[in-house]
Amino acid sequence: MAMVLRRLAGAPSPAAAALLLRPALTRPISSGFREERDTFGPIQVPNDKLWGAQTQRSLQNFDIGGERERMPVPIVRAFGVLKKCAAKVNMEYGLDPKIGKAIMQAAQEVAEGQLDDHFPLVIWQTGSGTQSNMNANEVIANRAAEILGHKRGGKFVHPNDHVNRSQSSNDTFPTVMHIAAATEINSRFVPSLQQLHKSLDSKSVEFQDIIKIGRTHTQDATPLTLGQEFSGYATQVKYGIDRIVCTLTRMYQLAQGGTAVGTGLNTKKGFDVKIAAAVAEETGLPFVTAENKFEALAAHDAFVESSGAVNTISASLMKIANDIRLLGSGPRCGLGELILPENEPGSSIMPGKVNPTQCEALTMVCAQVMGNHVGVTVGGSNGHFELNVFKPMIAAALLRSLRLLGDASVSFEKNCVRGIQANHKRISQLLHESLMLVTSLNPKIGYDNAAAVAKKAHKEGTTLKEAALSLGVLTEPEFHELVVPEKMIGPSD
Amino acid sequence: MAMVLRRLAGAPSPAAAALLLRPALTRPISSGFREERDTFGPIQVPNDKLWGAQTQRSLQNFDIGGERERMPVPIVRAFGVLKKCAAKVNMEYGLDPKIGKAIMQAAQEVAEGQLDDHFPLVIWQTGSGTQSNMNANEVIANRAAEILGHKRGGKFVHPNDHVNRSQSSNDTFPTVMHIAAATEINSRFVPSLQQLHKSLDSKSVEFQDIIKIGRTHTQDATPLTLGQEFSGYATQVKYGIDRIVCTLTRMYQLAQGGTAVGTGLNTKKGFDVKIAAAVAEETGLPFVTAENKFEALAAHDAFVESSGAVNTISASLMKIANDIRLLGSGPRCGLGELILPENEPGSSIMPGKVNPTQCEALTMVCAQVMGNHVGVTVGGSNGHFELNVFKPMIAAALLRSLRLLGDASVSFEKNCVRGIQANHKRISQLLHESLMLVTSLNPKIGYDNAAAVAKKAHKEGTTLKEAALSLGVLTEPEFHELVVPEKMIGPSD
Amino acid sequence: MAMVLRRLAGAPSPAAAALLLRPALTRPISSGFREERDTFGPIQVPNDKLWGAQTQRSLQNFDIGGERERMPVPIVRAFGVLKKCAAKVNMEYGLDPKIGKAIMQAAQEVAEGQLDDHFPLVIWQTGSGTQSNMNANEVIANRAAEILGHKRGGKFVHPNDHVNRSQSSNDTFPTVMHIAAATEINSRFVPSLQQLHKSLDSKSVEFQDIIKIGRTHTQDATPLTLGQEFSGYATQVKYGIDRIVCTLTRMYQLAQGGTAVGTGLNTKKGFDVKIAAAVAEETGLPFVTAENKFEALAAHDAFVESSGAVNTISASLMKIANDIRLLGSGPRCGLGELILPENEPGSSIMPGKVNPTQCEALTMVCAQVMGNHVGVTVGGSNGHFELNVFKPMIAAALLRSLRLLGDASVSFEKNCVRGIQANHKRISQLLHESLMLVTSLNPKIGYDNAAAVAKKAHKEGTTLKEAALSLGVLTEPEFHELVVPEKMIGPSD
Amino acid sequence: MAMVLRRLAGAPSPAAAALLLRPALTRPISSGFREERDTFGPIQVPNDKLWGAQTQRSLQNFDIGGERERMPVPIVRAFGVLKKCAAKVNMEYGLDPKIGKAIMQAAQEVAEGQLDDHFPLVIWQTGSGTQSNMNANEVIANRAAEILGHKRGGKFVHPNDHVNRSQSSNDTFPTVMHIAAATEINSRFVPSLQQLHKSLDSKSVEFQDIIKIGRTHTQDATPLTLGQEFSGYATQVKYGIDRIVCTLTRMYQLAQGGTAVGTGLNTKKGFDVKIAAAVAEETGLPFVTAENKFEALAAHDAFVESSGAVNTISASLMKIANDIRLLGSGPRCGLGELILPENEPGSSIMPGKVNPTQCEALTMVCAQVMGNHVGVTVGGSNGHFELNVFKPMIAAALLRSLRLLGDASVSFEKNCVRGIQANHKRISQLLHESLMLVTSLNPKIGYDNAAAVAKKAHKEGTTLKEAALSLGVLTEPEFHELVVPEKMIGPSD
Repeated sequence: MAMVLRRLAGAPSPAAAALLLRPALTRPISSGFREERDTFGPIQVPNDKLWGAQTQRSLQNFDIGGERERMPVPIVRAFGVLKKCAAKVNMEYGLDPKIGKAIMQAAQEVAEGQLDDHFPLVIWQTGSGTQSNMNANEVIANRAAEILGHKRGGKFVHPNDHVNRSQSSNDTFPTVMHIAAATEINSRFVPSLQQLHKSLDSKSVEFQDIIKIGRTHTQDATPLTLGQEFSGYATQVKYGIDRIVCTLTRMYQLAQGGTAVGTGLNTKKGFDVKIAAAVAEETGLPFVTAENKFEALAAHDAFVESSGAVNTISASLMKIANDIRLLGSGPRCGLGELILPENEPGSSIMPGKVNPTQCEALTMVCAQVMGNHVGVTVGGSNGHFELNVFKPMIAAALLRSLRLLGDASVSFEKNCVRGIQANHKRISQLLHESLMLVTSLNPKIGYDNAAAVAKKAHKEGTTLKEAALSLGVLTEPEFHELVVPEKMIGPSD
Repeated sequence: MAMVLRRLAGAPSPAAAALLLRPALTRPISSGFREERDTFGPIQVPNDKLWGAQTQRSLQNFDIGGERERMPVPIVRAFGVLKKCAAKVNMEYGLDPKIGKAIMQAAQEVAEGQLDDHFPLVIWQTGSGTQSNMNANEVIANRAAEILGHKRGGKFVHPNDHVNRSQSSNDTFPTVMHIAAATEINSRFVPSLQQLHKSLDSKSVEFQDIIKIGRTHTQDATPLTLGQEFSGYATQVKYGIDRIVCTLTRMYQLAQGGTAVGTGLNTKKGFDVKIAAAVAEETGLPFVTAENKFEALAAHDAFVESSGAVNTISASLMKIANDIRLLGSGPRCGLGELILPENEPGSSIMPGKVNPTQCEALTMVCAQVMGNHVGVTVGGSNGHFELNVFKPMIAAALLRSLRLLGDASVSFEKNCVRGIQANHKRISQLLHESLMLVTSLNPKIGYDNAAAVAKKAHKEGTTLKEAALSLGVLTEPEFHELVVPEKMIGPSD
Repeated sequence: MAMVLRRLAGAPSPAAAALLLRPALTRPISSGFREERDTFGPIQVPNDKLWGAQTQRSLQNFDIGGERERMPVPIVRAFGVLKKCAAKVNMEYGLDPKIGKAIMQAAQEVAEGQLDDHFPLVIWQTGSGTQSNMNANEVIANRAAEILGHKRGGKFVHPNDHVNRSQSSNDTFPTVMHIAAATEINSRFVPSLQQLHKSLDSKSVEFQDIIKIGRTHTQDATPLTLGQEFSGYATQVKYGIDRIVCTLTRMYQLAQGGTAVGTGLNTKKGFDVKIAAAVAEETGLPFVTAENKFEALAAHDAFVESSGAVNTISASLMKIANDIRLLGSGPRCGLGELILPENEPGSSIMPGKVNPTQCEALTMVCAQVMGNHVGVTVGGSNGHFELNVFKPMIAAALLRSLRLLGDASVSFEKNCVRGIQANHKRISQLLHESLMLVTSLNPKIGYDNAAAVAKKAHKEGTTLKEAALSLGVLTEPEFHELVVPEKMIGPSD
Repeated sequence: MAMVLRRLAGAPSPAAAALLLRPALTRPISSGFREERDTFGPIQVPNDKLWGAQTQRSLQNFDIGGERERMPVPIVRAFGVLKKCAAKVNMEYGLDPKIGKAIMQAAQEVAEGQLDDHFPLVIWQTGSGTQSNMNANEVIANRAAEILGHKRGGKFVHPNDHVNRSQSSNDTFPTVMHIAAATEINSRFVPSLQQLHKSLDSKSVEFQDIIKIGRTHTQDATPLTLGQEFSGYATQVKYGIDRIVCTLTRMYQLAQGGTAVGTGLNTKKGFDVKIAAAVAEETGLPFVTAENKFEALAAHDAFVESSGAVNTISASLMKIANDIRLLGSGPRCGLGELILPENEPGSSIMPGKVNPTQCEALTMVCAQVMGNHVGVTVGGSNGHFELNVFKPMIAAALLRSLRLLGDASVSFEKNCVRGIQANHKRISQLLHESLMLVTSLNPKIGYDNAAAVAKKAHKEGTTLKEAALSLGVLTEPEFHELVVPEKMIGPSD
């Protein structure tokens, strides 16, 4: 019974669906149902929920994936922002202020997350997001009606005529997509990358005097400092921030005002500009009305583009995390140059083993982000005529990528990068065993002679100096003057 | 301490985060905390939860993505199956039967989903899934201890020494991956495709006498029956089932018995074979022990392969759903050959419009599945040495693809395919207006003459017959004898 | 010896392979062989080729894919540019001017494409592109020696000590990657997109007064002008140009001066800045030295990023080409709103049929570009330590995408877009048959009444007017005043 | 005229383009032109080429990508096979034997590659491959006419009425796709993988007694033999062969006989079965006629499926090549367990350095193959109605993947795997320094004590034995009895 009740609240699990066929169970003891109506006729909706007929229909028609597949929360919140702004602007165009203000208040509650439980629909619905737009309209209409002392379902505040006034799903959904993505990028994703960048950059400074062997082709190469190595990582993350920020220009363009096909039918002139301004004011982000509403409805190139930037960042972080786990490999049979923080026991069978788990979580996220990017690209390329109908999927995939990559960056920074220590002893030992310091002999004895020295030392297992002296290509003082790692980490004067 | 408390609820939702700011709420009234220990030392765990120290640590170290990112339920259930079988086999090798039976009972509860709430960890953790293995070990140990009258946290039943006996995360996690995927494929995915196949096949029979215009390059082509067209769709789905089934051979191989690196260290000879047999008996599926345990731990090619089959199916379903929405386009300005079921109002602004929403949900799922496949491929290609550490991501992505594509297939079948009706009038009208029946003249008057007839009719807007007679290439009776759509839908005798 | 001979032609084409079975042909009549040497020892090289020992060795060691897989020509040309600039700057740092000038002249010949035949190596070689760098060094050294009156193979001009002076493959190859990509983007790709944009924009103006039915969800929707529809396409392409241009900031950064691991060992201070300036002057593009050379060698995020922009453009063009073929579908059984140019007979069996072949070529290119992007991403994410060793693959994939998408855009523009005509009669017919003009009744009679009118007309097969009058929701004059397509293509005053 | 001349050479290479500026060269000395005709009218064709009007038109209409983008050779050869078989079967149905035999002879020349130069068209053409089908028809018709003593262009043998008899591009192109892919898989790809498998398997035997440290999470783990490690690689390749072979069932189905839309219009009953039998006989492969021709034309799921298997193999080979380069890293600062063959000088600046270049070539190929797979998937999902029009792209991408991955596997085997040596000294040293042998203490002293021993040794830099004795958890003889690597590489009795 608990099971049954648990799912009445708007969860489209197959079990619940089956149960709903038995009339006795469809009425939760504590709440009961009310009738809601749309152009299709009446339908029963749980009394404790604010949604209406179209939401309820979608719940029943799209039993795909279960609760975890609900429309992402940032989309729901962005609907709150948009509907609030729409009411505000609609009052300028004649919407009854009493109703308008109630809508604004109800929408504010949505924007603040107070009504998240009233948005039960999954991503896998109408490709325009129509049903989530109606979910927002219905919840806000019912809540606004309550605020004004009317009861749910009575349509004192009408979901279409009032809440959705001058709007269409076709322009609202792309608008909330842009609001949600731009907000996530600004408030969560970029700050997360900045935190990671700052930490890598600090490590770069901290490690600036530690000279270590370089590795190219995974083979020993000429030396560099550990700080230089980390400066490469820091630069990758810095450019990653630049990359995502570059794409925001087009993300700040809002489709609102295009209505059904981009023409703006059923809006008044200026509505599009005013609503973009209202959203900009509400969010503090520089949203503007889209220069071309036809593009804004029919394509989601802005999402494909931003997803491309996120994909680039995932490639960067995959590289960084891979390096760090390999440099931290060991404790005794790996490279062992870095000491990573120990956060948990590493294995259920091998005591004493500590694994680069943060690198693993991050690289797994990177792989999923690369996958999501392909999903966004496929969805973005498949629009037809005046409307792309892969909207919820495109939105959900990018938002998930932003959330996961942002969170994983923070976790990686906090639980790994911040605590990385250089294994000075090991780094020094490897550097001085290396043959690749031979490169510094090049300008003096020429490429071919230098190669001969290195080959000899390699074959005989000796040091470079022994090999060089034995071949007679230079004297011991010359060797010591030439082979100075400190002189090998930058151009010469 | 704040850190500890922050995750007590096991749920990093924003709402929960907000609540945690109010101190009074940080300690659940009904429960309080107990101390659990691992090799890292003691840690506080909520009393009403069965998990132990390592689970708690993971909760704190991997704050990535929130509740919706929890390890998929089929993985949790498969842990129940595996741990039950392990206890059973371990009793053959000397595990105290009292403890063994309690483990079996507790594991059965996990397998049945009674303890889902005690598995709070997210996908984005250690890449070997170690922490979810420990989560299972801890929950089952505590529950088994309770069954035997001992208290949680006392380690009367030990998570490592008893529940995880003869096992390593490195072999258990791939084992549950295979159990979960094979089970989902058999019990949900293939039946969903079969339901869709059956429905498409029925339509193929239902429509077998409806002759319609064919379309190639999106241009008018020679005729076929609507039944033939649907037979192509049915065949695609049938082959899709064959494709995924083909991959099961390798999915039925279990890594269990390989322990940490594939050698089977700390197991007894025969353990691997016995446990695979136990899992086979428990699930009714033909699991066997993996022929090579090194491959089974270090790679997840079986998942990349099965994901490839699912990817192929997504390409098939994308094509089918696209065709159906285009054939159903209209009502007056599209192709209009199919009448799709009306499930909901289509638009918040355009009354009377009914949209192919099931096609949209399905094609969105297909796009995500294609993306997930890339994620699985990237993860699968990035193993190092004896272990691939993209396991949870690989598992979660394939399981999500299976669930979404299965559910969407059922939804599409139930809410769309089943109710598709042919628009006989429209189909007939288009067929007879077409110029492409001219092809049937080819064998009689030759390619060049036939082309001339079609071009003339096209330019002058006349019928083929008028053009043919006017050009004098054949007589009216000849035309009527040759141009018979019924004769154009198959080879001649 | 057979081994050597097998590759003499420098080309493993099947045809060549067949020919090699005839002994007389294995020794080119006009040339014979000379001995070239490297640190591995002597090797036979065909006399009529300028390459040296390391190129010859690579030919023998990487028999992968045959002639069509050769390193892209833009990379070869960029090597010409770079080596010319390097000689110029090296003379400032003491390189013998006689040798320096000969190198500059030889390099200029490479830059102009006169020596393309001397670059036989395939993409699938060392991941740093070392062998192509040595190919350039060897060809230029031999050619410069000839210019100075010395013979090939004599190393009067030394490939390493002179041509490659102060350079490493590890910084030259990324440098030529950036030169090649930036040049292709500026000189070919962007102009191709501009040509397409201009044409789409012209069509948008040409069609600005043609009112047509809109389509959302592939279903009839409210009207718009054909010009508005094309303005969406034009905007997509315009933004595409913005997108790729946005990424150039990071593409203009050159790795040169980083040498083997990014430190600049074996260069003099200022070398990096001077060489970037020389390349900028030579190419007319604003190249600068990379801010961080470690990033520039170890990662190719700039390529992943630019590839992401190209991927976005491919999504845009896929959408545009798909729309155009569907709008041009017919001639009698499709949408038929556009008349596409007839460029060739469409079918070997169906006379009179004209297919949207340019759309097909373009969308095929888009699909390959999306694939290449994944390849670039995978390659970009897999660097290790100081060097990414997927360089030739990353370079080749992006360059191919740029070339194909640019060429296909031009072909599509020239052979399709430019000649598109509106089918006025068909467009008008569909518009006036449509039910969706009902939307214009919404503000007057409300959503629910409007829906009822549309549903009635749909069910009874009547016009909207008949339905509206029959339902009594408005008068005939009211209907005519409200339902004016010309008033439905923009917001009201 | 300039237009015509511009493409005379049949090749849009930049070099050719440059040459065309010199007027004297635009008319090949030896040839001149002849007039060819199709339904579009006359067109000039170079006299020394066998192609006709439609090929020439395609050359002019699809100037995309240049010579390297020509239709893959295996497709051209497969056209030879198919047209030969078609003539043979058509003679049974009444084709004049004189003409039929001449077609067979001409087609045989195409199949043998003698006429490759007469197939100038690029991949990026009509999406049905119509123009390449016509290219084959035209070349074979002209060549057959010559064989019969008639001149080119005279259509004594007609490309459509004779060579293409009972066929359509829509069924011939998918048929040659399947012939080409199945042939490449059988004759080149699988044998290449078998060669690699055999070599890895031999190494597995060769290295069966070399005990080494295992590595999980890139961290030290319990030991295994180097042979066991290689057995994992060998198994991956073996399963890879199984995977691609599994997909052949559906690849052996031929579309031929479906003609334009799958109905088989304009064929005689039995034609489809006979032609599949003829192709089977000609190729020695078990081709059959496709069970459902509608599926066979409208979808290319068989290619998406096979590409999925190739994608899985690329993931396997990426893993193997990555492991080998990391295990061979050094010579002094890496893992150094494997000694890879030295095939060429590794660096232009670092003498003595030898790089894992074969691993690099192979992993680059793997990345491209993963990309191609996405291209194939996108193309495969985008068919419309009775025809998928991404055929040439799908075919070319899979054929390229097969060729590259096959060639790279052979190159990797021949130039790397075959010559890999174990670095016995290094392997032994690492094994005995490791702490992970501690795992063998688990069954004796319990998990927690074993962990304490390992932690103590790790912190104090001592051996396990010293730590164990110091902690008093066991005696020296007990330690020696327990810690025996030879006992740790398999389950116990």
